Amino acid sequence: MFTKLCRPVPSINFRTVKCFCKPRQLNKYYNIIARANCSASSSFLCDKNVIFVAGLGDIGLDTSKELLKRDLKNLVILDRIDKPELVCELKELNPKTKVTFMPYDVTVPIAESKKLLKKIFDKLKCVDILINGAGILDDHKIEATIAVNYTGLVNTTTAIMDFWDIRKGGPGGIICNIGSVTGFNPITQVPVYSGSKAAVVNFTSSLAKLAHITGVTAYTVNPGITRTSLVAKFNSWLDVEPDVAELLLEHPTQSTKECAASFVKAIEKNKNGGLWFLDQGILEDIKWDKHWDPCI
Amino acid sequence: MFTKLCRPVPSINFRTVKCFCKPRQLNKYYNIIARANCSASSSFLCDKNVIFVAGLGDIGLDTSKELLKRDLKNLVILDRIDKPELVCELKELNPKTKVTFMPYDVTVPIAESKKLLKKIFDKLKCVDILINGAGILDDHKIEATIAVNYTGLVNTTTAIMDFWDIRKGGPGGIICNIGSVTGFNPITQVPVYSGSKAAVVNFTSSLAKLAHITGVTAYTVNPGITRTSLVAKFNSWLDVEPDVAELLLEHPTQSTKECAASFVKAIEKNKNGGLWFLDQGILEDIKWDKHWDPCI
Repeated sequence: MFTKLCRPVPSINFRTVKCFCKPRQLNKYYNIIARANCSASSSFLCDKNVIFVAGLGDIGLDTSKELLKRDLKNLVILDRIDKPELVCELKELNPKTKVTFMPYDVTVPIAESKKLLKKIFDKLKCVDILINGAGILDDHKIEATIAVNYTGLVNTTTAIMDFWDIRKGGPGGIICNIGSVTGFNPITQVPVYSGSKAAVVNFTSSLAKLAHITGVTAYTVNPGITRTSLVAKFNSWLDVEPDVAELLLEHPTQSTKECAASFVKAIEKNKNGGLWFLDQGILEDIKWDKHWDPCI
Repeated sequence: MFTKLCRPVPSINFRTVKCFCKPRQLNKYYNIIARANCSASSSFLCDKNVIFVAGLGDIGLDTSKELLKRDLKNLVILDRIDKPELVCELKELNPKTKVTFMPYDVTVPIAESKKLLKKIFDKLKCVDILINGAGILDDHKIEATIAVNYTGLVNTTTAIMDFWDIRKGGPGGIICNIGSVTGFNPITQVPVYSGSKAAVVNFTSSLAKLAHITGVTAYTVNPGITRTSLVAKFNSWLDVEPDVAELLLEHPTQSTKECAASFVKAIEKNKNGGLWFLDQGILEDIKWDKHWDPCI
């Protein structure tokens, strides 16, 4: 059963058991311990106003459902395409939470993002959490991948600072950016996508360290391979591996439900600078190597 | 003198001396050892055809000069702005090397990049090395930073694969991408720039692992803080630190000449997958942490 060391176990407080497992296959014991360590504060999200960019996506939709179990005050879903039946379904899940949908394409100019956010802030008065989850996975589309996965996320983040930055009299806020495990170590067959996610991870780690200036804290949730429509079939860069999706799915994965459960636990942990690794139903906080320090 | 551990020393084969130093100040001993380990093969570049994107920039110009000491056959410099007096100066440095300048903006559509590369390949017949060095540092300019530092580099790399990819009957080639130490750990005050460089580091590490398919090897050279016009004055994200340039330059830096010397040594080492760290006149190959493995 335990034939090969799969990866380091950085954040588990259990020093007597070593984790040996097959590639991308975790042992059950480790799984249980990890879950036990992630005891979330279930009241944290109660009465909060949350904006969720791409809250109708594959991971997004199940995460929205999971969020709705926490008695939010408002869940504002921004997504490129309206899916009225899904929004209706979400609205019916919890009468305590007001679910709103507004169309939003993260590749619009930043002025457009600010205009949309102004509408939301005018209506809700305060917003507690912004989740940036827009992403595409198609290494035939270089510009679109980078524009959505990185530029769009940076622009949406920058736009909300107009309302949150304590230097402008704002109240601060919390940014939850969806990165990916490929931001840590790439899926080499999709180098453009992986690079865009490395950008998200690095960018967000900076935001966290600027929190004392802006009042805005930040962390990433980085899903491992999750069984979504995104992953079911996608193009590799220059078709270096036409069967990349199939190959990836031959190894252990997680469901969108498992991912969503870890996702909301990470939000509830609310750790500024957290580098959350969400894989096969477990949640870990990665420690990043320090190769240099600008000392400023 | 040695008051604080500045950073780990990952690639130095000298286990009895620990490196304690002031922040961003390396001790002399370490410096000498590192240099000794980087004994370059000085004939490697002789008679090679090299394309250098941004070869007239601050680091670029001194690197071009250093390259010209190696008796290249051709040095084709692609840069946004022609600087005829600098090109003349380079042409006069070594009569054995033909220096050519061609205007190139990395943000053009990929079809334009391919057209330009076709002209070069038609003329030279073969190209051995592509150096991607275009970069801007200005966190007020989100779109431009990402378009130049990441998208432009990906597009130029993708464009040259038409000529190099062994699957298309090409001869293979070598890609040298200029990353930055901020791709390892960010300068938090310029999160957009730092993120774009993390993307370059991650992207290039994928290219290296695809070399068995494409025939194209790749590595990054990642300069530390180098005294260039780029670094002399630049904008931080949302002005979180208006004096970021001054603060950065208060700590030890390197000259463009020191950087260029390490740069060309890294090229001569020609290590597929190299993650070269060029700081304060020294050259190290960084070992990247493995947080997960897609196993494909």
